[in-house]
Amino acid sequence: MNPRTVFRIVGTLLLLLGASMLLSVGIALIYGDGDALGIAFSALIVMATGSLLVLLKRGKVDLTLRDGFAVVSLGWFCMSLAGSLPFLITGAIPTFTEAFFESASGFTTTGASILTNIESLPHGILFWRSFTHWVGGMGIIVFSIAILPFLGIGGMQMFKAESPGPTADKLTPRIKSTAEILWGVYVLFTVCEVVLLTLGGMPLFDSACHAFGTLATGGFSTKSASIGYYDSAYIHWVIIVFMFLAGVSFNLHYHALRGQPKQYLQSPEFRFFASIIIAAVLAMTALRLVEGDPLEKSLRESAFTAVSITTTTGYATANFEAWHPVAQIALVLLMIMGGMAGSTGGGMKAIRIQLLMKQARVELHKLVHPQTLYPIRQGGRIIQEEIVLNVLAFALLYAVLLAIGTLIMSLIDLDHVTAFTSVVACLSNIGPGLGGVGPTDNYAAIPGVGKWVLSMMMITGRLEIYTVLVLFTRTFWSR
Amino acid sequence: MNPRTVFRIVGTLLLLLGASMLLSVGIALIYGDGDALGIAFSALIVMATGSLLVLLKRGKVDLTLRDGFAVVSLGWFCMSLAGSLPFLITGAIPTFTEAFFESASGFTTTGASILTNIESLPHGILFWRSFTHWVGGMGIIVFSIAILPFLGIGGMQMFKAESPGPTADKLTPRIKSTAEILWGVYVLFTVCEVVLLTLGGMPLFDSACHAFGTLATGGFSTKSASIGYYDSAYIHWVIIVFMFLAGVSFNLHYHALRGQPKQYLQSPEFRFFASIIIAAVLAMTALRLVEGDPLEKSLRESAFTAVSITTTTGYATANFEAWHPVAQIALVLLMIMGGMAGSTGGGMKAIRIQLLMKQARVELHKLVHPQTLYPIRQGGRIIQEEIVLNVLAFALLYAVLLAIGTLIMSLIDLDHVTAFTSVVACLSNIGPGLGGVGPTDNYAAIPGVGKWVLSMMMITGRLEIYTVLVLFTRTFWSR
Repeated sequence: MNPRTVFRIVGTLLLLLGASMLLSVGIALIYGDGDALGIAFSALIVMATGSLLVLLKRGKVDLTLRDGFAVVSLGWFCMSLAGSLPFLITGAIPTFTEAFFESASGFTTTGASILTNIESLPHGILFWRSFTHWVGGMGIIVFSIAILPFLGIGGMQMFKAESPGPTADKLTPRIKSTAEILWGVYVLFTVCEVVLLTLGGMPLFDSACHAFGTLATGGFSTKSASIGYYDSAYIHWVIIVFMFLAGVSFNLHYHALRGQPKQYLQSPEFRFFASIIIAAVLAMTALRLVEGDPLEKSLRESAFTAVSITTTTGYATANFEAWHPVAQIALVLLMIMGGMAGSTGGGMKAIRIQLLMKQARVELHKLVHPQTLYPIRQGGRIIQEEIVLNVLAFALLYAVLLAIGTLIMSLIDLDHVTAFTSVVACLSNIGPGLGGVGPTDNYAAIPGVGKWVLSMMMITGRLEIYTVLVLFTRTFWSR
Repeated sequence: MNPRTVFRIVGTLLLLLGASMLLSVGIALIYGDGDALGIAFSALIVMATGSLLVLLKRGKVDLTLRDGFAVVSLGWFCMSLAGSLPFLITGAIPTFTEAFFESASGFTTTGASILTNIESLPHGILFWRSFTHWVGGMGIIVFSIAILPFLGIGGMQMFKAESPGPTADKLTPRIKSTAEILWGVYVLFTVCEVVLLTLGGMPLFDSACHAFGTLATGGFSTKSASIGYYDSAYIHWVIIVFMFLAGVSFNLHYHALRGQPKQYLQSPEFRFFASIIIAAVLAMTALRLVEGDPLEKSLRESAFTAVSITTTTGYATANFEAWHPVAQIALVLLMIMGGMAGSTGGGMKAIRIQLLMKQARVELHKLVHPQTLYPIRQGGRIIQEEIVLNVLAFALLYAVLLAIGTLIMSLIDLDHVTAFTSVVACLSNIGPGLGGVGPTDNYAAIPGVGKWVLSMMMITGRLEIYTVLVLFTRTFWSR
C-alpha cells in the first residue's frame, strides 16, 4: 500500500465533500432558521483537512489493488467522520457517537436515525442529512460498477465487461468515465422525482430531500412519520416507482436510456429481482385482505413496504410490525437479499441469491450423477466455479458478521428480535428492523457501544464486506 | 432406483424394529403398570409389515447410489411411522400427528416432546420412547460413518478412507463390518453410563433410559423436569461427560479404545469442537458469576447446558431462558453448529464450520494476491475445491430450510423467536429452543401443521439434508 497516494485521494474526496456542504449553508441562509454559520465552519474544517492531505503528494496517481481497498474503506470512514461535523458543531446532535452514527447512516445510505424530533431541526441541517444519502449513493454506483469488478470481490468480477466507458483495465480513466455516464442517469432520475413530487403537492424542499433519500435507497425523511406523513396515494406511488428504479442496476438504466429498454427483461437478475418483489407484494396484499383491509390501501402499503425493504430504502407508510408475523419474517428475508448489483441498494444482492440457488440445485444433481459436470449459467454465460466459491464465501461472511453482531447487541441487553434485526438492518443498509428498532421506533435508545457496532456494520455491509475485512488480514499489510 | 430392493431393506429394518419392541413388552410386564398388550400388538403389526416387504424380493441385494438415498430416507420415515404405533395403540398419545412427532423426534435423536405429564406414563411406553433414541443413534453412526462418505454428501466424502472395516468400495460388506465395530463402542459406552448412573443412586430403569438419550444425543427423559429432577452434582457430571463423548466421532473412540487415545488430540475437528465447548462453558460461567451465582453451580450448569446444546442432546438442568440474552444467542449459534461428523450429534457439524471458516480466510487472502493458489488443509491433507463447494452448498441449504421453516411457523401465528428457534432445534435435532419451545416448555402447544413441518425438519436435518432433498429433484427420478 502507498499511504501517500491513499491519503491524497481521500483528501480530494474531503475537499469535494467540504465544498458540497456550502450547498447546505445556502439552504440555511435562504430559510434563515439558523445554523448557517455552524455548517460553514464545518465546511471550512473539512476542506482544510482535505487540502492538507492532498498536499502530501503531488503528481500522477497510480492505484494498486491494495490501495483500492484502503481508499474505499478509509474514504467512507472519513466521509462519515467529516459528515458528522455539521451535526456536532451546530449542536443538532450534541454527542460524537450519535453524530457519527447519523452521518455513517447517511453516507452508507442506510437511513437508520437517532433523531426523535426531526421536524424541530432547521432546514440547513435537514438538507445536509438527506444530502449525505445522495452523495453516498453516487459513491456506491461508482464503487459497485467501476471498482468492485476489478477488486475481484464477492463474485462481482463477473461484471467486468459490463460497465459503460473505456474497456481498458486501467482503473482511473474507467472510474472517471463510468462516473460521468452513470451520474447523469442518477441526476436525471433525481430531478424527475423532485418534479413529480412537487406536482403532487409536496413542498420543493421536502421533495428534494425525499428524492435524495429515494435514489440513494437511503431512507432519511424530513418528517418523523416518514412518507406516512403524506396522505396522498399519488406521492406514495411516485416514491414506490423511484425506490424500485433505485434498486435496479444503473447499468440497465443507462442502456434503457440509450434506447434499449429490452435489456431490463433480458437481464436474468432483473427478472429474478422483479419476480420476488411482485410475489412479495401479492402475498402481503392477500394477507391484508384476509384481515379485512380495503384493496387499494392494502396493495399500496404492501407495495410500498415490500419495495422499500427489498431495495433497502427503509421509508415507511405503514407500521409493518402490526402485520401478520409471516409478513414480518418475509420482510427480514427480503432485507437479507437487498437490491440488484450495480444499484444503490444494499444487502447481499439479488444476483448472489440467484447464483446460490443455482449452485444448490447443481449440488443436488451431482448427487445422482457424480461424474457429470454441471456448469452454472447466467444469461447464457458459464459462471466459473471460482466465482461461485467467492459468492458462497460472501454469504458466509455475511452470516458470520450477523452472528457476531447479534452476540454483541445481546451482550448490551437487547432482546433477541431487536438484537438480530438491528444488525440485519444496518449490515444490509436498510434502516428499520423489528422490535426496538421497528418502523415506528428509531436507534436513539440503543446504547453507545451498540451504535458504534452498528455504524461499523453499515460501513462494512455497504462496502461488500470483503473490502473492509481485508484490511484486518496479515496478508494485506505484509511486505 | 430399484423399488423392490429398497422395500426389501426397509422391510428388514422394520422386522428388526418390531422385534426390538418386544423388549418394551418385557419391561411393561416386569413393572406390570399396563400397556404390554398394546405394545405387543404394535410389534406384531410392524413385524408383519416388515415380513411382507421382505418377501417382495429374495436373493442378493445390490445397492445403487439412488437406492442408497431412497433406503435411508424411506427407512427413517417408516421407522418413525412404525415407532408411533405403540403410542397410538396404547392411547399414551391419542392423535396420529402427535404420536408421529414424538416417534420421529425419537428416531432422529431430537428429543423434542409433546408430552406434558411424562411421569404419568407406564414403564413400557417410557422405555420404548427412550429406546427409539438408542436405535436412532445406532442408525446415525452407521449412516454418517459407513454410508455418507460414499453418497458424496455435504463434503463427507473426505472421510472415505477413515471408517474402520474393509476398504473395498462395496457398500454392503462395509456397512456390516463398520456397524459391528462401532456398535460395540456404542454399547460399551451405554453400559458404562448405566452403571455409573446407578452408582449415583439413579434407579436402573431411569439410568437405562437416560443412557439411551445421552449416547444418542437424544434428550427424552423419564422426568418432566429432565435431568434437573436429580439434585446430584455427580449425576450431572456423569451425563456431561457422556453427552460430550456422544458428540465426538465414534471413529476416534474406536481408535482410542484400540490403544491410540492420542488420535483425539491429533484430530483438528476434535480440537476445534472441544475448544468451542470450553470457550462457551467459560464464557457462560463468567456471565453467571457476574450475576452473583455460586462457582460450582455456575460451572456445572454452564457445562451441562453448553455440552447438551452443542452435542444436540437437549437435556436440561437449568432454565437457560432466564440467563443473559447473549448466552441464549450463543446457545442458538451452538445449535446451528452441532456435534462432530461421525458422532450421534446433529447440526451442521463442527468440521463443516471449520472448513467454512478456513475458506473465508482463503478468500480474503485471494483478494490481495489474486494469482496465488491457497489450498485448504485439514490435518495435513489438502481439501479439494469441489468438497469445499459441497460444504458451502450444504450450509446454504441449511439456511434455506431454516428460512422456509420459519416462514411456515410464522404463518401459523407463532412469535418470531419461537418460530425461528423451533426450526433450528428440530433441523439440528436438539429439542429445546427459546420462547414457546424453551427448556421449560415443550412442543404440545404447536399447531398440527407445525408439528408436521417440524417432524419433516427433524428427518431432513438428521439425514444431512441432501439425502432427503435429492428425492424431490427430477434428476433422481429420470430414466
